[in-house]
Amino acid sequence: MTRQIRDVVEQYVKLVGSGPTDAIVELYAPDATVEDPIGTPVRHGHEPIREFYDVIAALDRSTTLHADTVRIAGNHAAFMFDIVTKVGDQTFTLTPIDVMEFDDEGRITTMRAYWSQDDMRIEPA
Amino acid sequence: MTRQIRDVVEQYVKLVGSGPTDAIVELYAPDATVEDPIGTPVRHGHEPIREFYDVIAALDRSTTLHADTVRIAGNHAAFMFDIVTKVGDQTFTLTPIDVMEFDDEGRITTMRAYWSQDDMRIEPA
Repeated sequence: MTRQIRDVVEQYVKLVGSGPTDAIVELYAPDATVEDPIGTPVRHGHEPIREFYDVIAALDRSTTLHADTVRIAGNHAAFMFDIVTKVGDQTFTLTPIDVMEFDDEGRITTMRAYWSQDDMRIEPA
Repeated sequence: MTRQIRDVVEQYVKLVGSGPTDAIVELYAPDATVEDPIGTPVRHGHEPIREFYDVIAALDRSTTLHADTVRIAGNHAAFMFDIVTKVGDQTFTLTPIDVMEFDDEGRITTMRAYWSQDDMRIEPA
């Protein structure tokens, strides 16, 4: 299970950086929930989750998993990653900590992301 | 609130490394829950939480917050830290990701820790 969860985390971060959205959504169980950032309204089910990732998919972006931060305990995982987006002549780097729970088939059932605007780094591209 | 939560996170990690247990327990709301590691039975209330930290208090230990990992969103926080314990001629280094929720007074209401035995590093002291 640990190996399977690690694989899904790696796929997730890679797909958030390159898509397609459908492949991200397929990592989630049908009745999964996404709360990103934590404290904002929960998206419940594949369609609201697809809408969320479609917003990201429209951006010029890349992602990097901080591999040394991946923590897996039973059917739970926590990890940190960078998502870098380019808008005009600026790059925006956000480095959230995401936590996930998984079902027995290795599908994500809950995702909650810890970050705020304070964690956004803005630089010339 | 963000500043207050960051202060509590810093105090928490410092106190886990040096105690006293009472001071750690005082960071928690009376009906708080601790799940460490996530997936194990939840400790609910000050007395079960005190018992948990008393086990750590008996060890020769130190802690270091990874300050660049602290993420705060609303009344939630996530962060990574090292806890190093010395037993005989060996040191055990564990580096969990903890997530916490806080009440309006800045007291911890839930703590869940992400780590497994795989994340334990053992070295000569």
